[in-house]
Amino acid sequence: MALPNIDVTPIGGLRSIEEGRHVVVRGWVYRKRVLKNKVFLVIRDSSGIVQIVFSGGLAEEASRLNIESAVYVGGTVKREERAPGGVEIQADSILWKFVGEQFPINEDAAEADSELLLDLRHLWVRSRKMQAVLKIRSTIFSAVHEYFRSNGFYEVQAPTFISAAVEGGSTLFSLDYFGTPAYLTQSAQFYLEALIYSLEKVYTIAPSFRAERSRTRRHLTEFWHAEMEMAWAGLRDVMKVGEGVISRAVERVLQDNLEELSIIGRKTEYLERIKPPFPMVSYDEAIEILRNKGVQLKWGDDIGADEERVLTLQFDKPIHLHHFPEAVKAFYHKNDPQRPETTLSVDVLAPEGYGEVIGGGERIENYDELVSKIRKFGLEPSNYGWYLDLRRFGSVQHAGFGLGMDRLVMWICGLDHVRDALPFPRDMRRIRP
Amino acid sequence: MALPNIDVTPIGGLRSIEEGRHVVVRGWVYRKRVLKNKVFLVIRDSSGIVQIVFSGGLAEEASRLNIESAVYVGGTVKREERAPGGVEIQADSILWKFVGEQFPINEDAAEADSELLLDLRHLWVRSRKMQAVLKIRSTIFSAVHEYFRSNGFYEVQAPTFISAAVEGGSTLFSLDYFGTPAYLTQSAQFYLEALIYSLEKVYTIAPSFRAERSRTRRHLTEFWHAEMEMAWAGLRDVMKVGEGVISRAVERVLQDNLEELSIIGRKTEYLERIKPPFPMVSYDEAIEILRNKGVQLKWGDDIGADEERVLTLQFDKPIHLHHFPEAVKAFYHKNDPQRPETTLSVDVLAPEGYGEVIGGGERIENYDELVSKIRKFGLEPSNYGWYLDLRRFGSVQHAGFGLGMDRLVMWICGLDHVRDALPFPRDMRRIRP
Ligand SMILES: [Mg+2]
Ligand SMILES: [Mg+2]
Repeated sequence: MALPNIDVTPIGGLRSIEEGRHVVVRGWVYRKRVLKNKVFLVIRDSSGIVQIVFSGGLAEEASRLNIESAVYVGGTVKREERAPGGVEIQADSILWKFVGEQFPINEDAAEADSELLLDLRHLWVRSRKMQAVLKIRSTIFSAVHEYFRSNGFYEVQAPTFISAAVEGGSTLFSLDYFGTPAYLTQSAQFYLEALIYSLEKVYTIAPSFRAERSRTRRHLTEFWHAEMEMAWAGLRDVMKVGEGVISRAVERVLQDNLEELSIIGRKTEYLERIKPPFPMVSYDEAIEILRNKGVQLKWGDDIGADEERVLTLQFDKPIHLHHFPEAVKAFYHKNDPQRPETTLSVDVLAPEGYGEVIGGGERIENYDELVSKIRKFGLEPSNYGWYLDLRRFGSVQHAGFGLGMDRLVMWICGLDHVRDALPFPRDMRRIRP
Repeated sequence: MALPNIDVTPIGGLRSIEEGRHVVVRGWVYRKRVLKNKVFLVIRDSSGIVQIVFSGGLAEEASRLNIESAVYVGGTVKREERAPGGVEIQADSILWKFVGEQFPINEDAAEADSELLLDLRHLWVRSRKMQAVLKIRSTIFSAVHEYFRSNGFYEVQAPTFISAAVEGGSTLFSLDYFGTPAYLTQSAQFYLEALIYSLEKVYTIAPSFRAERSRTRRHLTEFWHAEMEMAWAGLRDVMKVGEGVISRAVERVLQDNLEELSIIGRKTEYLERIKPPFPMVSYDEAIEILRNKGVQLKWGDDIGADEERVLTLQFDKPIHLHHFPEAVKAFYHKNDPQRPETTLSVDVLAPEGYGEVIGGGERIENYDELVSKIRKFGLEPSNYGWYLDLRRFGSVQHAGFGLGMDRLVMWICGLDHVRDALPFPRDMRRIRP
């Protein structure tokens, strides 16, 4: 049946429409309550929900609409303090309907069974909570683009198919590429490093892939990765851009998504304090803080997810955790000339126990230094031919970072699991829907 | 050697600086000319090029800088009509330098050898031409985001790893996913269709993958795909959004990239006329036009790249080629109830022979109709379980399209080959750098 050719009012816009006005709304049945002579349907569209009251002959027609049926309804706007959005609609016509089958998810009951919700993800994305997270996610992506562009970065794209690993091969997905082995990218970094010699400041937002055998709260096999690289830059610049982009994302969410934050129960006070500068904590200081909290690490140990959790619970802002020991950071990190056992590296850890959202730092720009570091890490310089080339022609000091977009969404939304930060998550056991 | 801690002037900003002012610029040696007592270096950064004159003792130091060496140079601004950008700099100091090895690309000679330039792509991206294309590409990506967002679309992300094919399996890349077979996505469409029931209007820009055995001027194995899907929408909406997004991209390039267009020799007159509405040409009319041009197609034949070329040479704007026969469009295209042998489909073809940049249309929203179309196409409905589910609960009329971002860049830049529209192209024979 063809859709009615008629103007509709977005449900989110009803609150500004005067009492008594006639409107048409369209959407899906979200809640249903049948009384003797009246039917109350809560209808949702992408902009909000509204209660619609059906009486008389219409009540019977409305009572046959299942949850998630689609409808066009005409009616009159009425102020109603107790209703969501402060208005309800007194229906006078159902202009179009699609009556669905019995919807397989009961929203309240479903919360308990996360596997079911993952199996039915193609339907669960309709839930108020997922809808809210997806809107916040859209804002965050927009804010990250906006931050980079307004700071003079060009957007670029690096390939997904690569012929060699960036950081070593253990977590690479491999495939047959017309008869030769190929891998899926873990990071655009090397390509961005090539591009700074053309555009100086570049960024990209694209999927990266890690064949992670672990199923943790913060790992996905495919994740959205915002990466940037800047010529003529160092560790401090990475920190500045890192806190800038995170602060911009939070600021935009507070501007555009107060309603969505309230739907998912995220307290804005956790977000309102996220403003630059972020505290700087050296690796040495972090070890000390952790010791005082009873976590015994010796100098040189990596700071993993558990330690990050303890550490970040001490702060109410993200922190710059900097100057990691050489051995815990990938070979391309530049050693600090002032203290060569450490690197000019920084992770930005989100507060409230969330941990790493950004990893970056200054890159080695000297050819010989890079070759000997590759060897020191047990890797083979000849596998890094074109990457080494960048150090042979006009090499300049440069730095960059990678930002896990899904983790950023997870933290800003206060989610328990990264998989709820995106619509169709992938881990080692899940590849559908 | 540490970089000088000193303010620099972007080269592109020199034209607005008054004669006689002292400035420091930094960049890479782009051209070099050594006279008896003077050395002329053209220095490039991401914003432009400038000629710098070195005399006296500095001339000797400057003469030792190879092409693509990196430098900080201090000097005085001088008007010079004949110089690029209208100014030159009289150098008084070289504050920092990195002297490179002999650069392996001679820009003029290289144009002849496209394989060499693809092998050295990590260095060739520094060329003026690639730099210009990459800046235009960055503008186009920004414009596409901006168009969708300012028209009420939410940005979403669909998975790369999928368990079944969208349009049939012949050009799918497959891989081993923790012991089960998986594929790389060819399109986010099905996922976007799921998401319209939450967000109504959604878009994404992400890589898609096609294991194309053909090496043509317009095919890549991995390409950037802008896709959108709208609830409550039909064929006309797809046309409107399609011409809107393309026109916005062209408009923004004309606003921001006149210099880059001139560097790559792209005449703006080809772009200035790209404004909505675009002409609508039905499949039937196209067959007629082609026959008049001597291309004999019978009704039902697909319109391929060669035919698109002939057809689009007749227009100076993109065209909406609509109402393709059922058999040449994928199963999910809705047949036109008025003329069931055709579909509510549209391709947007770029002019000047470029051809298809957008393909889209209305989708089948009825469960039974979709099942029987799947069967009619020799496919197995049970492979489309969750996609069929979308028709069981609140299904509504909807439509969408896919836009090849690399092809859009190719046409806007007037390039001969799509591989020159992105920094690191992939085809069946090339996976590096
Ligand atoms: Mg870490
Ligand atoms: Mg076609």
